[in-house]
Amino acid sequence: MSSLSEKIFAGDKRSIGRAISAVEDARAGATELLRQIFPHTGKALVIGITGAPGAGKSTLVDRLASFYRAGAVRVGIIAVDPSSPFTGGALLGDRIRMQGMATDPGIFIRSMASRGHLGGVARATVDAVAILDAAGYNKVIIETVGVGQDEVDIVKTADVTVVVLVPGMGDGVQAMKAGIMEIGDIFAINKADREGVLRTERELEMLLSISDRPDGWTPPIIKTVATEDSGTEALAGAIADYEGFIASHHQESDGRRAKVAEHRIIELLRVRLLEAALAKGVSKEELGEMAAAVADHRRDPYSVVDEIVARLGLDQR
Amino acid sequence: MSSLSEKIFAGDKRSIGRAISAVEDARAGATELLRQIFPHTGKALVIGITGAPGAGKSTLVDRLASFYRAGAVRVGIIAVDPSSPFTGGALLGDRIRMQGMATDPGIFIRSMASRGHLGGVARATVDAVAILDAAGYNKVIIETVGVGQDEVDIVKTADVTVVVLVPGMGDGVQAMKAGIMEIGDIFAINKADREGVLRTERELEMLLSISDRPDGWTPPIIKTVATEDSGTEALAGAIADYEGFIASHHQESDGRRAKVAEHRIIELLRVRLLEAALAKGVSKEELGEMAAAVADHRRDPYSVVDEIVARLGLDQR
Repeated sequence: MSSLSEKIFAGDKRSIGRAISAVEDARAGATELLRQIFPHTGKALVIGITGAPGAGKSTLVDRLASFYRAGAVRVGIIAVDPSSPFTGGALLGDRIRMQGMATDPGIFIRSMASRGHLGGVARATVDAVAILDAAGYNKVIIETVGVGQDEVDIVKTADVTVVVLVPGMGDGVQAMKAGIMEIGDIFAINKADREGVLRTERELEMLLSISDRPDGWTPPIIKTVATEDSGTEALAGAIADYEGFIASHHQESDGRRAKVAEHRIIELLRVRLLEAALAKGVSKEELGEMAAAVADHRRDPYSVVDEIVARLGLDQR
Repeated sequence: MSSLSEKIFAGDKRSIGRAISAVEDARAGATELLRQIFPHTGKALVIGITGAPGAGKSTLVDRLASFYRAGAVRVGIIAVDPSSPFTGGALLGDRIRMQGMATDPGIFIRSMASRGHLGGVARATVDAVAILDAAGYNKVIIETVGVGQDEVDIVKTADVTVVVLVPGMGDGVQAMKAGIMEIGDIFAINKADREGVLRTERELEMLLSISDRPDGWTPPIIKTVATEDSGTEALAGAIADYEGFIASHHQESDGRRAKVAEHRIIELLRVRLLEAALAKGVSKEELGEMAAAVADHRRDPYSVVDEIVARLGLDQR
């Protein structure tokens, strides 16, 4: 794997793609690779962009990436595809990205499905970000559809989070205030040429005015029309402002990074513990027998779990 | 807790509510309670109802519950509230349920938020279903908005799953075919008085015709207009048909229940393993220090996890 990590440091796109596939599938060797690249990470600014389906996030992300590219900044994009039976419309992986991007060596785009990952999509996304970071991408954008806990977990690992709204969500803004206040460092009202933009802006301002962030940052509201490339520069400016803010507020930003790191340790630990339990505590056949006994109500699942935990020497009572 | 379990068996609503809160919060004593009630479960038919936001699921669930109540069947309803920042519209907990339901002793309605549960909402939902089952509710309906992996995991624990669609989803049906084929035992096209119902039905029929369920069941398509109570009886009939089918196909249905039980054991095991690791393998202060070291890139998270796993005696290499 060492030659793979060297190729990643050199920015070889095929190797980067292979490495991301390896962490997605939690393949043997992926952990060792991540261990090797870890010291080379922490340089990229990780930008999380989230919002309701249809808010125009992908177009906005593409515009932002083009803006950065004009300044010779290298951009990695990870689009987390909800892959749900009910999202409707085109899947992210299928959509048409801006022309020219795929052939630009300074840009890397990858779709990741949000299910089927051992240890969760949040774990796989964080690992993919680490790979792009180690490969020298200066900005790594994570784009998610913020409908589930998974997506919220993902954007929480970003350095800066942009929440994308559209005009006319009306009372919806009220309903979502609890979740939004937590995660948005910057708010973009996209499709800002539509009716209702002023109302959405006013409602959002009101909500922001009563929020009380512990770090003292006031999230700016940026109006964009991504399809016309309007507001892109203002959005990039707001991101740079927030980057400056966290740089000058070491304590808070260290706290945030430590919290992300703790979350990550816990998630990795979960996966490893279950692997160890299934390797050392119970065989596959035995687990099948136990499950059949629970299904028949001959045993209860709690005592089954007690037994496995005791076998591992982890029982406390 | 033994008096609480006795009150649950007696169908005392306040005790049922308290017990569900206890499992939601994973409170001390909740596991012991579940252990006590487990032998009294397995009698209820668990009906999962899922579909896109706005498909009219809650009205359909209310109609179905009223239909069952007319036959003196006791009905428990667990409405899993997505509690996402981006769902828009009214939260399930806030909506107006059919009048008279709240005072009917043969019905129990509970909203559960889909985040903030130790061990996940799927675990908490399964436990809540067990409580309603032990309390003598004959039908337990789980209503979810099927947007994330959590929701899909929940409906997979049901005995029968109804997927609710609406006309005019058009190409969306194509996009979602992969997920839908897996989980729907019955399809309801709600708002069937709307334009496009025939097209949606034809598309769905086509998809079902090419699907190949291992149990040989062909999912029926039921047209409903929940707001007018139209199609409710046909839906209840289809549910009864499927109940009869699984009763006469012991092998497949045992296999399904065993799979659900195995999933449940694994989920309980995950929670218990992490609890044990945080109790025996690493102190809160130490974990904080480790996280700070990872955040500063002084250590990598993989070696931190290796260390904790080794301390627990679970390292394999």
